[in-house]
Amino acid sequence: MPSLESLDPAWLPAEAFRAVGGRRVCVRGAGELVETVRGEVREACGRFGGEVVGEGAYDLLLEVAEPAGSGELAGSSEEFAFAFDGTRASVTASGGAGLLYGLFHVVRLGDSAFSGPARSELHSPALPLRMVDHWDNVAVHPVMGQVERGYAGGSVFWVDGRARGDVARVRAYARLLAACGVNAVAVNNVNVHAAEARLLTERIGEVAAIAEVLRAYGIRTHLSVTFAAPIVLGGLGTADPLDAGVREWWAGAVRGVYDAIPDFGGFVVKADSEGQPGPFAYGRSHADGANMLAAALAPFGGTVHWRAFVYDHRQDWRDRSTDRARAAYDHFAPLDGEFAEGAVLQVKHGPMDFQTREPVSPVLGALPRTRFAVEVQATQEYTGQQRHACWLGPMWSEVLRFRPGGEQGPSVGELARELVAVSNVGDDPFWTGHPLAQANLYTFGRLAWQPDAEPLDILDEWLRLTFGDGPFGELRQLLAGSWATYEKYTAPLGVGFMVQPGHHYGPSVDGYEYSPWGTYHFADRDGVGVDRSVATGTGYAGQYGEPWASVYESVESCPDELLLFFHHVPYGHVLKSGKTVIQHIYDTHFEGAEEAEEARRVWAGLKGVVDPERFARGAERFEEQVRSAREWRDQVNTYFFRKSGVADERGRHIY
Amino acid sequence: MPSLESLDPAWLPAEAFRAVGGRRVCVRGAGELVETVRGEVREACGRFGGEVVGEGAYDLLLEVAEPAGSGELAGSSEEFAFAFDGTRASVTASGGAGLLYGLFHVVRLGDSAFSGPARSELHSPALPLRMVDHWDNVAVHPVMGQVERGYAGGSVFWVDGRARGDVARVRAYARLLAACGVNAVAVNNVNVHAAEARLLTERIGEVAAIAEVLRAYGIRTHLSVTFAAPIVLGGLGTADPLDAGVREWWAGAVRGVYDAIPDFGGFVVKADSEGQPGPFAYGRSHADGANMLAAALAPFGGTVHWRAFVYDHRQDWRDRSTDRARAAYDHFAPLDGEFAEGAVLQVKHGPMDFQTREPVSPVLGALPRTRFAVEVQATQEYTGQQRHACWLGPMWSEVLRFRPGGEQGPSVGELARELVAVSNVGDDPFWTGHPLAQANLYTFGRLAWQPDAEPLDILDEWLRLTFGDGPFGELRQLLAGSWATYEKYTAPLGVGFMVQPGHHYGPSVDGYEYSPWGTYHFADRDGVGVDRSVATGTGYAGQYGEPWASVYESVESCPDELLLFFHHVPYGHVLKSGKTVIQHIYDTHFEGAEEAEEARRVWAGLKGVVDPERFARGAERFEEQVRSAREWRDQVNTYFFRKSGVADERGRHIY
Repeated sequence: MPSLESLDPAWLPAEAFRAVGGRRVCVRGAGELVETVRGEVREACGRFGGEVVGEGAYDLLLEVAEPAGSGELAGSSEEFAFAFDGTRASVTASGGAGLLYGLFHVVRLGDSAFSGPARSELHSPALPLRMVDHWDNVAVHPVMGQVERGYAGGSVFWVDGRARGDVARVRAYARLLAACGVNAVAVNNVNVHAAEARLLTERIGEVAAIAEVLRAYGIRTHLSVTFAAPIVLGGLGTADPLDAGVREWWAGAVRGVYDAIPDFGGFVVKADSEGQPGPFAYGRSHADGANMLAAALAPFGGTVHWRAFVYDHRQDWRDRSTDRARAAYDHFAPLDGEFAEGAVLQVKHGPMDFQTREPVSPVLGALPRTRFAVEVQATQEYTGQQRHACWLGPMWSEVLRFRPGGEQGPSVGELARELVAVSNVGDDPFWTGHPLAQANLYTFGRLAWQPDAEPLDILDEWLRLTFGDGPFGELRQLLAGSWATYEKYTAPLGVGFMVQPGHHYGPSVDGYEYSPWGTYHFADRDGVGVDRSVATGTGYAGQYGEPWASVYESVESCPDELLLFFHHVPYGHVLKSGKTVIQHIYDTHFEGAEEAEEARRVWAGLKGVVDPERFARGAERFEEQVRSAREWRDQVNTYFFRKSGVADERGRHIY
Repeated sequence: MPSLESLDPAWLPAEAFRAVGGRRVCVRGAGELVETVRGEVREACGRFGGEVVGEGAYDLLLEVAEPAGSGELAGSSEEFAFAFDGTRASVTASGGAGLLYGLFHVVRLGDSAFSGPARSELHSPALPLRMVDHWDNVAVHPVMGQVERGYAGGSVFWVDGRARGDVARVRAYARLLAACGVNAVAVNNVNVHAAEARLLTERIGEVAAIAEVLRAYGIRTHLSVTFAAPIVLGGLGTADPLDAGVREWWAGAVRGVYDAIPDFGGFVVKADSEGQPGPFAYGRSHADGANMLAAALAPFGGTVHWRAFVYDHRQDWRDRSTDRARAAYDHFAPLDGEFAEGAVLQVKHGPMDFQTREPVSPVLGALPRTRFAVEVQATQEYTGQQRHACWLGPMWSEVLRFRPGGEQGPSVGELARELVAVSNVGDDPFWTGHPLAQANLYTFGRLAWQPDAEPLDILDEWLRLTFGDGPFGELRQLLAGSWATYEKYTAPLGVGFMVQPGHHYGPSVDGYEYSPWGTYHFADRDGVGVDRSVATGTGYAGQYGEPWASVYESVESCPDELLLFFHHVPYGHVLKSGKTVIQHIYDTHFEGAEEAEEARRVWAGLKGVVDPERFARGAERFEEQVRSAREWRDQVNTYFFRKSGVADERGRHIY
């Protein structure tokens, strides 16, 4: 395995600590996280000539103060106050986690923390839980490998059926996560196979060893478990959530977990989904299933994350009445109010599956009496698999700013209790395969801390931390537009799923058209798209509240970028942009491929500016992006030209 | 592993030996194969009350006679004379192999060998070599498994990286092969991976152990080798066929093989094909490559089978000038006359890759001064993967009866020196997965013995041997039409390759349309098919001699079943049948799926007639065939309806 020395420091290069490390810093308080802060400060001061001081004069004070009871810091151990009095800066927190986040806040500010007008600010996370879910297998899965949908090598936690035991790597990872505000990690795949199931019981010690490392950076450990655990591990004849023996078994299993990991975060469960077992087998509801696990976790303060990704994955493509997009709402909306306090419904941000463009899931906002987490996918399964540069900040921000009840109502970011990302990290030296994919993980953490943050501000933070000051304006522009670029050369107008089956990389326009997965575009010689209106389609548009139900219902008001998600229209239909659908397809695909070439040019210009290894890795990725973007362009354009027979207005080459 | 007792006797059930075993049989001669005959007779007589007699009275004489020099039996040790004098039957051969084939001839005749008019017949194989190629890996390949394109479980020879060592199974297999006339087996995959490469050298002992078992039934063993062997095994810096060191290395390697296997048959080589190494890397021709191996084998009488399956598998789908169908002819026709005597060019029967319907390869007949083998595929990669009943006798017979120079010229069966089949056998208890797929292996062997045999006569032999006399008329009809049925519900009119990528099972109309494999149908809203004419297309039709070049060149004379292979035509084009192309597609697909249902009904009627295990296995296969045939029907019909917009004349449901 690569040594730690070869690991990229990502957004925490030594240089990022210059402002802190060159000053006199006083750290006050006790406890494991305060010791972590002290260690960070000591390391920085050692490097940059500053000084860790005791009671004397200081430039920066980092202090855990007793909660004042009625004071500002009474609420959460994660919040902190930052102050600058014109001379000295200080971070005050009521707990070690807040102090740690405060330290990283000062790191982000750099010298500006120690200049400017006197000020005092309170910082606290908008969402109390900010989790990264690893779809990491312990044993290499014959099809999915070590990391399901992983594009950055093996797992940081597991290798070949066992715990990797690479403490230094996990610690470096925890530090990166803490620096962007992540406070929870689920260490194994939601598809729980045989070896992974046993992490819950006889292999819990391996999880505890990881948890110990993560804890030093304020991160709680969560575990994906199989709903069938009482059968496969406990030898019971049932996993019925209302069965007394089953409940007892889970209570005992949870006790064992907390014996090993006193601050264990809880379970993640994918039940009745894509072949995983669940409560349906016993005629029970998903609330019954989730509440049973919540009850087992409650005495210890743990939470069950219950995924809402439930749909029929053995659909018949001939059956146009079944609409996969409807499934989560149909399954879960009727259960509002039935979930226990310790159950969190974990909902993918869109109704399908992390496509490049989807509407916001109608489940978000439809269950006012249910705690929910929004799940996004940092791993770029459908967005270029970390071979294409595709910064997802704008996509996630759109979801979090979406207001299910209209402009006057709260946003998804305000309604959600948690934000969860499927991890894009592996044992790759750059953590994420494409060095620029680091920006997605960073942006996720920062948006989870503040969902209404301006994503471009976060991108600037990431750029500055990672690269320092320098000629990165074009790189910023490249990344800022990279999602839009990717959207241009892939599936058009929100229709989605024109990917190669199985691995999901590269184009296959009909790849999922006759499959059992519920993912169709219905292109014929006259038009394309899925009619999800109430009036003539599957009725999905009616799952939204107003104004969205009306907006999406009609072809006239539906936004262009979602048109084919909601409507089947002729190729000659004129978009709000003034272009026909077919010409839009041609134009965006030519543009997108050109933009990929432009991105490659921008990266080539950074030779000698960024370090050689990073440059080389990026250059190789941009080569592939250009090749793949052309393939997308030509396959999609050719497909629709052959179907529609409509020539490109501008006479460009379509095969 | 299943015990031998659980192995299906296939076309050699004990009952098949009743006529022989109930009589007085005299076996005269000496040698290993005569001992095999003696053992067969002893076993049969023991079971059915007959008697193995010495010099006294007999009903059947099986005798190896000294070659008479000028007599009938001077030619080959494989031929035999069968005679019936009104009372007694006799088989006379000049060698043990002929005696063995004569015994199985009598078995096939049953009681009729001992009745009817007095007669004397000479039987000899039309093709001296009748080989089964196993695409068996020694080590399980991560993608292709133990047997590449195998649909009958694991290998009969290898398991998990080692020789299986199951002598009884290999012996039972050799006996089945001998009973249909096969006299050569290649024991490993033509894609030679790392473990398999070493069979040539340090692991030759494992091959010798298999050869010893096969030898008892007159079968010589062949080995697939990698052209890069001098590098990967010999540590040389080159595999250049004109390099003296390379030639010396091969000479030494061949000596080692013959030390271990004195009657070794020779090599099979897939060079410069789908990623396998070959002479192109050294700027040498395929004749150079083949002749180098032929020279090494010549002192021992061995042969190199050099596969002609050379094409560009990294084609760009946008490039319409490259035509994979042309590749074998373009590569090999210019080399006619350059191949050594000990080199046999092994040519797939069609220009593409074992599709359900292809024209006969123009290579067959284009190299009059080159010995060639016709390669067919018993393993049903593209013909239902032994889940669909698809008896390939008529397809192979059409190939063998095809006359490249027109009606007055010789047939492929007359021009060919050998017939080779890719094996459909594995460690499945029924040998071939689908019990009815056994008929393909049997038919192959018998056609290799007599290429102009009537395939339905061979089917009758197989039915009678396997099932005995009984109500099998409907089963015969089912099998006789099964290839036509399969063709109806899959890719239409010879266009081919509308299969799922990778595993090749089930429909995906565009599955290979935008791939690098050179396999396209070019369907658009107006028409479908590949223009391979000389006048306006790729020129492939011009690779044939007359009359075929002219027949295929024009839409008017091209046979319907190959129309889309040679021409791109509008959906409204009227076939010789009087139907339009689009209506033909609809009609055949509805018919094919109905015929699959009818086949299932026929099989269901055999409950209680065939043994329960065979019945159950068949019933499960026919269920799957019906399901899959409907899927083919609906995907293909829907695809072409969406593209063409033409409604079915009969108003049937298209989705």
